[in-house]
Amino acid sequence: MLFKVLIQNCSLVYYQRQRELSKLRKYGTIFSGALAFFSVKKTIDTSGFMALPITNLDKLSSTPEEMKTKMELMILRIQSEFCKALEVEEDCNKFIVDRWERPEGGGGITCVLQNGKVFEKAGVNISVVSGNLPPGAVPQMRSRGKKLEGSHLPFFAAGVSAVIHPVNPLVPTIHFNYRYFEVKSGDEVQWWFGGGTDLTPYYLNTADAIHFHKTLKETCDKHDKGYYPKFKKWCDDYFNIPHRGERRGIGGIFFDDLDAPSQEECFAFVTDCASAVIPSYIPLVQRHKIAKYTDVEREWQLLRRGRYVEFNLIYDRGTKFGLYTPGARFESILMSLPLYAKWEYMHNPPDGTPEGKLLEILRNPKDWVDCSCEDEKK
Amino acid sequence: MLFKVLIQNCSLVYYQRQRELSKLRKYGTIFSGALAFFSVKKTIDTSGFMALPITNLDKLSSTPEEMKTKMELMILRIQSEFCKALEVEEDCNKFIVDRWERPEGGGGITCVLQNGKVFEKAGVNISVVSGNLPPGAVPQMRSRGKKLEGSHLPFFAAGVSAVIHPVNPLVPTIHFNYRYFEVKSGDEVQWWFGGGTDLTPYYLNTADAIHFHKTLKETCDKHDKGYYPKFKKWCDDYFNIPHRGERRGIGGIFFDDLDAPSQEECFAFVTDCASAVIPSYIPLVQRHKIAKYTDVEREWQLLRRGRYVEFNLIYDRGTKFGLYTPGARFESILMSLPLYAKWEYMHNPPDGTPEGKLLEILRNPKDWVDCSCEDEKK
Repeated sequence: MLFKVLIQNCSLVYYQRQRELSKLRKYGTIFSGALAFFSVKKTIDTSGFMALPITNLDKLSSTPEEMKTKMELMILRIQSEFCKALEVEEDCNKFIVDRWERPEGGGGITCVLQNGKVFEKAGVNISVVSGNLPPGAVPQMRSRGKKLEGSHLPFFAAGVSAVIHPVNPLVPTIHFNYRYFEVKSGDEVQWWFGGGTDLTPYYLNTADAIHFHKTLKETCDKHDKGYYPKFKKWCDDYFNIPHRGERRGIGGIFFDDLDAPSQEECFAFVTDCASAVIPSYIPLVQRHKIAKYTDVEREWQLLRRGRYVEFNLIYDRGTKFGLYTPGARFESILMSLPLYAKWEYMHNPPDGTPEGKLLEILRNPKDWVDCSCEDEKK
Repeated sequence: MLFKVLIQNCSLVYYQRQRELSKLRKYGTIFSGALAFFSVKKTIDTSGFMALPITNLDKLSSTPEEMKTKMELMILRIQSEFCKALEVEEDCNKFIVDRWERPEGGGGITCVLQNGKVFEKAGVNISVVSGNLPPGAVPQMRSRGKKLEGSHLPFFAAGVSAVIHPVNPLVPTIHFNYRYFEVKSGDEVQWWFGGGTDLTPYYLNTADAIHFHKTLKETCDKHDKGYYPKFKKWCDDYFNIPHRGERRGIGGIFFDDLDAPSQEECFAFVTDCASAVIPSYIPLVQRHKIAKYTDVEREWQLLRRGRYVEFNLIYDRGTKFGLYTPGARFESILMSLPLYAKWEYMHNPPDGTPEGKLLEILRNPKDWVDCSCEDEKK
């Protein structure tokens, strides 16, 4: 929306120049240049963000059409909206905000709320970084179909990511991440988008699962009817814990290497996906946050959080990419880990128990949107 | 010791055959064969082990000189002695014992004590496995200086490993692992030993650190004066968490690829190291297990356990080798993880606090045995 306002204002400046200010044409260059400068600058209102943008404001103002700028402004907006939506559920606890700079170029804003009433640990991070990809990071970054030649590749990456671990075991954990990459390989600049949103419940609630997946499907369908089924499967395949034969959660969407049909359309899709996080998740928080729960449910939540840690530290490409990048801010990368986790030897809940029912779904992901199962209205 | 008894009994059989039974020489082959069979078989007394050996008893009895047999009997003994020493500290809680078989060959015995009075989670595992190394496991197994050619290599591995996470934050966590490998590459059988013992305190106690390192040094010195300094440094280098710039604990010894001066001498060294675990660790448990501790100390212990999980899941070669081996028993591999762990964003204890003092040592490993620091007697 911010970006739309910016575009509209640019158009206005143009028409003013063309029609009403023709008499001032002799001072044209200086005057309209100055006018455009101040008009565009006004459009970047940073007051709603959690902190000042990472890129210099003048740079952002002077490059409104660049994807780097659009992406940075979008993730700043998403971060702020999501943090504020979570704070509303928290009542009085607020996010702490760390704006950090990376010596090699760029930086980020890490927002964390720990030990809240509703959220045990909530982390919402944006980062806008650039530099040369170190050799160790290239294999993690090299996405399918992208051939990156050379050992030190100039890159730009901007993304938003969040993991929310609630206190109540009946409220699911959510994770999302939307990102834009540019890598210069030889004379060519390659760009692509990636991202996804996925849900990790501790107890299966069919209505929650359907609502969550339906919101994602509707968002995908606005752009391409093929996206949801493809990205839903990708998500199930990605968030997999092979040694346990379980998925991390009940999935959502996940994609990488998105570079078609156009940069603008990809950006619009990623923006819509990121904007769908609040309507997909906040209703689930509101529905369950005051529900009573038992010690057994809490212990099960901690055991599942152990599995979450296993996935993130052993298999997640993003975490590996981050931790193997020298000078990376590990506190921001590892903010995805829960406040508490548990590992118990040979904990196997029996079939038919609520815990067993969740495991059954984690072992055999199902189709939630076309689901017409009996317990749909549970 | 068991192994010594076995050797002595074999010698006895030999001399009996040679001297006293010469009159029965006409029945020689049948009689002495049968006598040797029963005599040797008697020497494998399995009653002290936590469960029956993995390898068939007849096979073990008939191959007393093979390193595979010696190693299996040694690790069975070490497992049993260590479990029993821990049970003594526990008072009434006992280890549960899982003897498991691996469809591809071999198996293991996993002993776990969870939620004890003194030990929150204690796992002592032995495994004796054989088969073909899958391609994914070869890079994890390929130790320095060992060139393994081919994609499916016949291998044998026998080892004992344990991780003990005590309840009381003033009692350190210990880890040890001693292992023997054989890999057939082409026509040649390569063998080597590896292992180590290391300590992870939550609060630094100089006397504990010195006792622990001194016990290891004395054990090493019996075999080679060069071992302790070399293996101490190797341990500090291996148990490193690069993204945090911290070691996992205060080290100990660690080595791999040990194949000199002889197989017998390597085995004797590894046996001595494994036998040194009890005298190096149990006194520390006895010293601190009934000490009072605060909630702050418990929370710090949980945070350090989070770091333990980070090391084990991100960097530990053994864990990776295990989890990437299809059909591996992940419950035995992951028994090293603590019952509870914690991750707090930006937890940085101030310098000068007991927590800060530990961090200082984890960032700058020190020499404990030649240490003449003032607080030695603390």
